[in-house]
Amino acid sequence: MCPPEDKPVANGNEEMVAIDLASAVKTNGHLNGGEKDKKGFYNRPSDFLSNTSNWQIIESTLREGEQFANAFFDLETKIKIAKALDEFGVEWIELTSPAASPESRAHCEAICNLGLKRSKILTHIRCHMDDARIAVETGVDGVDVVIGTSSFLREHSHGKDMSWITKTAIEVIQFVKSKGIEIRFSSEDSFRSELVDLLSIYRTVDKIGVNRVGVADTVGCADPRQVYELVRTLRGVVSCDIECHFHNDTGCAIANAYAALEAGATHIDTSVLGIGERNGITPLGGLIARMMVADPEYVKSKYNLTMLREVENIVAEAVEIQVPFNNYITGFCAFTHKAGIHAKAILANPSTYEILNPADFGMTRYVSIGHRLTGWNAVKSRVEQLNLTLTDEQIKDATAKIKELADVRTQSMEDVDMILRIYHTAVQEGKLKVGQSAVLDRLLEEHVNSRETSPNRNAKRQRVEEASA
Amino acid sequence: MCPPEDKPVANGNEEMVAIDLASAVKTNGHLNGGEKDKKGFYNRPSDFLSNTSNWQIIESTLREGEQFANAFFDLETKIKIAKALDEFGVEWIELTSPAASPESRAHCEAICNLGLKRSKILTHIRCHMDDARIAVETGVDGVDVVIGTSSFLREHSHGKDMSWITKTAIEVIQFVKSKGIEIRFSSEDSFRSELVDLLSIYRTVDKIGVNRVGVADTVGCADPRQVYELVRTLRGVVSCDIECHFHNDTGCAIANAYAALEAGATHIDTSVLGIGERNGITPLGGLIARMMVADPEYVKSKYNLTMLREVENIVAEAVEIQVPFNNYITGFCAFTHKAGIHAKAILANPSTYEILNPADFGMTRYVSIGHRLTGWNAVKSRVEQLNLTLTDEQIKDATAKIKELADVRTQSMEDVDMILRIYHTAVQEGKLKVGQSAVLDRLLEEHVNSRETSPNRNAKRQRVEEASA
Repeated sequence: MCPPEDKPVANGNEEMVAIDLASAVKTNGHLNGGEKDKKGFYNRPSDFLSNTSNWQIIESTLREGEQFANAFFDLETKIKIAKALDEFGVEWIELTSPAASPESRAHCEAICNLGLKRSKILTHIRCHMDDARIAVETGVDGVDVVIGTSSFLREHSHGKDMSWITKTAIEVIQFVKSKGIEIRFSSEDSFRSELVDLLSIYRTVDKIGVNRVGVADTVGCADPRQVYELVRTLRGVVSCDIECHFHNDTGCAIANAYAALEAGATHIDTSVLGIGERNGITPLGGLIARMMVADPEYVKSKYNLTMLREVENIVAEAVEIQVPFNNYITGFCAFTHKAGIHAKAILANPSTYEILNPADFGMTRYVSIGHRLTGWNAVKSRVEQLNLTLTDEQIKDATAKIKELADVRTQSMEDVDMILRIYHTAVQEGKLKVGQSAVLDRLLEEHVNSRETSPNRNAKRQRVEEASA
Repeated sequence: MCPPEDKPVANGNEEMVAIDLASAVKTNGHLNGGEKDKKGFYNRPSDFLSNTSNWQIIESTLREGEQFANAFFDLETKIKIAKALDEFGVEWIELTSPAASPESRAHCEAICNLGLKRSKILTHIRCHMDDARIAVETGVDGVDVVIGTSSFLREHSHGKDMSWITKTAIEVIQFVKSKGIEIRFSSEDSFRSELVDLLSIYRTVDKIGVNRVGVADTVGCADPRQVYELVRTLRGVVSCDIECHFHNDTGCAIANAYAALEAGATHIDTSVLGIGERNGITPLGGLIARMMVADPEYVKSKYNLTMLREVENIVAEAVEIQVPFNNYITGFCAFTHKAGIHAKAILANPSTYEILNPADFGMTRYVSIGHRLTGWNAVKSRVEQLNLTLTDEQIKDATAKIKELADVRTQSMEDVDMILRIYHTAVQEGKLKVGQSAVLDRLLEEHVNSRETSPNRNAKRQRVEEASA
């Protein structure tokens, strides 16, 4: 079965795969259960409109991200970020308007001259011929035009009415197209604009051959059902691609992006760590996490996922922020499992409590059983994994020691394993009985002293501690 | 118009307001535009099922949050958090199972004895009579029972089949109810469970009189449309309240909570800053941000919103994390506006680029125009706000000085105002002409020196710098 002829296909990317219904039957990440478990009951048959297996990223760290409070990128930093994004594999990189300042223009030209392997370059300008004339001279592959269409922005920002907007948009679009450069027309604050005005201007620019139209939730007010409805409606009005831009003020930026793709959008704007005006937009890593659940093979085929952490670290350093503790995929605790019941199950099968596989991103799982809320069942699972033979009574005894030590300092998995192995050996050799806490203390101390000089162990310990720090 | 008779009303809260269609006509936050602008076109007529103006919070920082990698709360910390949540006004506080350890039990009893003003106390136990017998003795107002229903958890966690689960659930529910205590029954990993199994057990426990059923996205795989469909379906199967619990692994925890309420859920689980297993669950502040857009008056009537930052700071300190730079409402940049076009408009009317009013949360807006990407239009807007008379040429000249100073250190709004006032006075007094940069430098220096000793100014500067730090 093929997509309908008027189905828009994301353009400008030779490696784009066509819609494939076989791959569109979604799987829930790295599920290891039986065949019948490979799809949860909500893995519905593929939606006819859905582009969750056919979309592109417009990475706007160097445009939206430059509007983040802490961001003042010099050229060297911009080049470093652009190269990292190219290596990660984003389809498009969007840059600050060359009309903003002579420096912005020089930066834009320099990045166009980098000769990136995969990413094409866009710049983002106001809907104005002065800006357009500058933009087309920089060497960009595409120009993103934006203008405020809500009554708020028409009244308090640029002061123009819809007929002026339409007239100017047509002039700018035809000019940019005449230079052989791609062009997108976006409204701003789309979700507080008049629906009829909005559809009317989108239809007009589509007819004169714009490559993409853009929908922007500039203030972060939209929710996924609104997004789905607007994009779905728009899908019936225009035949060009549809790009979406979501601010995160009310926590829906990732879900809105997903809803937009389900409704037929083709391009999503992101920035690294979500940096942008106020608290930012859809984060690159967060979108990847979401799309990995929808179609892991498609995402893995497009992007170099193990680069994600490096890209984030480069940007975090450049804007002097910490990667949030709860960041998607790369946050320090994203793959940390703690409750006794979770730890026990995850040791048996990671899919029990993980929808993403840390290995896909070059990350590692951390099962926290060495803390004072640990359960003897979780410890028992580990005993079984280590192929040790201990009775339940002995395991409870060892667990008590782990909890006692964890009251002083959280014990790494390696620490826990060491305790269990020593306990096991001592029991086998008749040196230890249940309840002989002092004897166990002495055996542990002897073991630690004997290994203190091993550099390998120290390096490993440091790594484990960093992962859980 | 009244809700239908079988419409579930969140129970256990005397202050709950009935559904009021007048207030259910949503407004987009603090809109200051004309009457016709008070509703965006997507403020659809109220949905019959929707509970976005009738819901309660089950605050789980002291249960789910205790499963966060860094969380080891002592009793003193738990009491501090519980009291702060009570003052904020959450309807329910959920605590770690008293069956987890003697310490957990003692903490649970101590918190029940606090005599909180508003929040009622829940505890969260496995679906097991041993746990239930302990829970009902602690003094809690309600017991939350949970059991894994997905094949993953049935196979790799507890190893029980659906008929065992049903039998045990009935026994536990009837026992807890016999003690006059509220009871919730929740599945775990609901979105990877068999739909028919799930609906079947929910129908059974509803019939025997459970107070709430719970839907949990334990692995963070669900998206808002799935959530809407499941909750809407469930709404037709049970007559009791519906609680939802969403993990945030793929960035949909807030949007899923909103979709659940739209579909008829009555209770949402949160934790402060979202702390929990892995990267956590729906954050309290993020849910508040979302719901403020849906029905600001309802949210303001229920909660002491200016407490939000304090509650977050208490928890952040207790678990030794930084509040993320991009945190909802309280993140350092949540109300910072930077791009020239944004700054200009926000000075004219905050609703142009803000869907939330910082004053509602005791926060302040920060318009960043003192940076090197600033525009003279933004500066002109400020000149007009300050009622100064400067020509465009003079404003461009002053803007150049602001950019020059901002290359060394970002200038606060107060700094910018000072530069503009001094520029204006000097021009009026004939001391300054366009292009006399050195003269302006001297005037600025004289002014700064004359005010250096003012404690009031220093305190103000410090506050402004903190807000933008």
